[in-house]
Amino acid sequence: MSAFEQRLNDFQKLIKKMIAYGEAVGLMHWDLRTGAPKKAVEGRSQVIGQLSGELFRLSTSDEMGAILEELSRPDHEERLNRTQKKMIAVAKKEYDRSKKIPPDLYQQYVVLTSQAESVWEEAKETSDFAKFRPYLEKIVATNLEFIEFLGYETNKYDTLLDMYEPGMTMAKLDQLFGALRERVVPLVAAIQQSPHQPDTSFLKQTFDKEKQRQFNLFILREMCYDLEAGRLDETVHPFAIGLNPGDVRITTKFVLDDLATALFGTIHEGGHALYEQNITKDLMGTNLCSGTSMGIHESQSRFWENMVGRSYSFWQRYYGELQQTFSGLLDGVPLSDFYRAINESKPSLIRTESDEVTYNLHIMIRYEIEKALFEETVSVADLPEFWNEKYRDYLGVVPANDGEGVLQDVHWAGGMFGYFPSYALGNMYAAQFRHTLLGQMPDMEDKIAKGDLLPIKEWLTEQIYQYGKLLDPGEIVLQVTGEELNPDYLVRYLEEKYKPIYKL
Amino acid sequence: MSAFEQRLNDFQKLIKKMIAYGEAVGLMHWDLRTGAPKKAVEGRSQVIGQLSGELFRLSTSDEMGAILEELSRPDHEERLNRTQKKMIAVAKKEYDRSKKIPPDLYQQYVVLTSQAESVWEEAKETSDFAKFRPYLEKIVATNLEFIEFLGYETNKYDTLLDMYEPGMTMAKLDQLFGALRERVVPLVAAIQQSPHQPDTSFLKQTFDKEKQRQFNLFILREMCYDLEAGRLDETVHPFAIGLNPGDVRITTKFVLDDLATALFGTIHEGGHALYEQNITKDLMGTNLCSGTSMGIHESQSRFWENMVGRSYSFWQRYYGELQQTFSGLLDGVPLSDFYRAINESKPSLIRTESDEVTYNLHIMIRYEIEKALFEETVSVADLPEFWNEKYRDYLGVVPANDGEGVLQDVHWAGGMFGYFPSYALGNMYAAQFRHTLLGQMPDMEDKIAKGDLLPIKEWLTEQIYQYGKLLDPGEIVLQVTGEELNPDYLVRYLEEKYKPIYKL
Repeated sequence: MSAFEQRLNDFQKLIKKMIAYGEAVGLMHWDLRTGAPKKAVEGRSQVIGQLSGELFRLSTSDEMGAILEELSRPDHEERLNRTQKKMIAVAKKEYDRSKKIPPDLYQQYVVLTSQAESVWEEAKETSDFAKFRPYLEKIVATNLEFIEFLGYETNKYDTLLDMYEPGMTMAKLDQLFGALRERVVPLVAAIQQSPHQPDTSFLKQTFDKEKQRQFNLFILREMCYDLEAGRLDETVHPFAIGLNPGDVRITTKFVLDDLATALFGTIHEGGHALYEQNITKDLMGTNLCSGTSMGIHESQSRFWENMVGRSYSFWQRYYGELQQTFSGLLDGVPLSDFYRAINESKPSLIRTESDEVTYNLHIMIRYEIEKALFEETVSVADLPEFWNEKYRDYLGVVPANDGEGVLQDVHWAGGMFGYFPSYALGNMYAAQFRHTLLGQMPDMEDKIAKGDLLPIKEWLTEQIYQYGKLLDPGEIVLQVTGEELNPDYLVRYLEEKYKPIYKL
Repeated sequence: MSAFEQRLNDFQKLIKKMIAYGEAVGLMHWDLRTGAPKKAVEGRSQVIGQLSGELFRLSTSDEMGAILEELSRPDHEERLNRTQKKMIAVAKKEYDRSKKIPPDLYQQYVVLTSQAESVWEEAKETSDFAKFRPYLEKIVATNLEFIEFLGYETNKYDTLLDMYEPGMTMAKLDQLFGALRERVVPLVAAIQQSPHQPDTSFLKQTFDKEKQRQFNLFILREMCYDLEAGRLDETVHPFAIGLNPGDVRITTKFVLDDLATALFGTIHEGGHALYEQNITKDLMGTNLCSGTSMGIHESQSRFWENMVGRSYSFWQRYYGELQQTFSGLLDGVPLSDFYRAINESKPSLIRTESDEVTYNLHIMIRYEIEKALFEETVSVADLPEFWNEKYRDYLGVVPANDGEGVLQDVHWAGGMFGYFPSYALGNMYAAQFRHTLLGQMPDMEDKIAKGDLLPIKEWLTEQIYQYGKLLDPGEIVLQVTGEELNPDYLVRYLEEKYKPIYKL
């Protein structure tokens, strides 16, 4: 074995070890949320800490540094195939980033955010922003320090964005969100003023949990979610987790008096899971075997949830089964009423409960706040007011207190600045992919109306899923759609869908 | 920090790391058996291999070697407390054992036994001993090699016994089993000849699974199994697994047309779990925080299953609830008939389905075979005949084929020689502990009849559970009962219980 081959071998061994730790930690997280006994937590947290620490040490080890340096030598690099090159690039990005931050500072930050999360919980419950404020101030200040260590080109905030959406910048987001805002804000207003508001009362009857579970499982199978490579459990906060390509689990939340919560939650997580289940097996055992970014991931959950699962075609096929499953509850409700009910759009205060149209505005508000924080044009102390103003401007609603206002999301307590935009990017990517898909599969809606979802899953697999992290989000969107991310597709999709629903 | 303190610190850190790997691997095993999707297995096996390998490397690392050597220095040793001394002794025993076996030989053996397990499965199904024979020959031969590397004093087989029951020897077992055989073989014969055989037909009706689950959970709570530190799941082969003292899970197998399978399986695993749940919290984070040996562990599962769960007193308290739960099925069955039915004793071919009395004979047969193999007085080729002869002698039954004969257990395919005796030792320990308990708590049966099981659990905790591995099995039995393991207690218990049942 040549020195080069030896190095490559060492690299792959190191990556495999890191994957093993990651998978073990993933399973422990899943278990803690789905059914671990209460008293397991103390010991389990220590084990998670131990293995996560080990994982971090490996990713920043001298061994990793030496391997990456050698393999990046021009004479070595040209002997690498495409997958190997990308594996090294991904590992190197992580290595460089972790190495630039002083370990002590990072350690303090981990403690800070974990304290902040519990303080936030109390502060939210009592709507007491003052309590949370000093923590948030420190978290923002530490992130600013991080940015100094990590470096930035034009805007400090770009460094944070890149962590969740490689290649995304404030300049691009300003443009994307600007275009979106211009047409979504008036759409939201028009919807609100429409005299044709849907009746949603029939979604609020009592729906037997076991029947809900059975129907959700049925829909998952129809979506081509592979239940031999996954399972459905119940949690307070639904999620999808890919442990390996043969084990991608999802959870949902059954609410007895709200049919929509579990149903669309399950389809949403199912979309995330389809992505992870369909990454090519060739990437197993590499650090590329997961979704390429938060935004692309969210595009898949949103595509399946809203563009398939909340489409008229979908319910042409499945509404009969739904009526039968909950016999007596929906018998007198025509399909058209059901369709309008599940697509109700209404300005609200809480992001996680908002609909497809207004959701984007919730995200834009958070984006503008984060931007202002990292451009240092607003202070943490002013956030509650800033937040309330934005809600009034964009959505026409004002929180009664900070608990349902600036304190509503956990993200900032955890230091996740730069994450929120992914949610809206997901909607934009999804609409743009859908546009291309419709061009190549003009009978897509007919297929959906027949429950023939396999070709759609296969198209997404070929275009997106199979690549894992082999392609960056920007490369994917360009390769699939032939152009860069363009917010027009989302706006057009929303207008085309919602104008008929609200008779605008 | 002194050099000594530094070393001690390093040692504790290393142990904590090993515990973390062990707990992660444990959870992955639990998950694979309870509900992991089928396609998870491929990836998960690699992760388990990776982490188990890491665990083995840590336990035999140069770092561990150096730490153990230093801490064992006389001037250091005297500064250690009791727990630290035992921690070092346990780690050292494992280190020494692992270090003596050449890694290549061990690696080949791991491959051999994993192949042997799948060959065994086929061989068992087709009753084809010839197919399994070459594997078993190699496994025995490799174990003989291991023994040469590990060393032995009087008998080679002692080295294997010590792995599962520290301190146990062939000489002791010969004496224990000899005494047992002398009185159990006639008891079995007398039971078989009794004209008063219990009617068990009412245990074979159809018992609703959900009701079985609820009743099993109720009994677990009554036993003081802490469901906030555990959970009950369903598997083909029931087991208990202690992940940490706050997370000790059990599984059971529900058989619709056999009430006894799940019920007594659950109580059995519940006994194992009580042990692990009640180790003192002081031992958390040490390598002493689990049951001290297979035999002592089995004593607890057997004590709860047979001496509590199959006692008349127990059903004086719970039979009413059982009848109510399965209303209509047991209404006409008097308690005394039920008690006799759940204590039916009948010579059979299959160990795992055998009763409290005959079980010991199944074990003795295996012990005699293992002994003969390692004294090299019988060859693998002769095992089927040897087996059948022993069954005829001890139990009066002869297998129709090797599938229900010599091929029935997986243990030998996995190389687990020296393990079987633990099962019978468990029965002996249990009876001896029970005798002491009865001396100190003369109203034990009254307590059981009132469902007042807490004092019993507390006594066992104080006497046995709390210590974990801090005491060896021999030390425990001496400390609790004031004498060495004595088979008379088991014989007396069996005679006292079964003579009335069979009117002998």
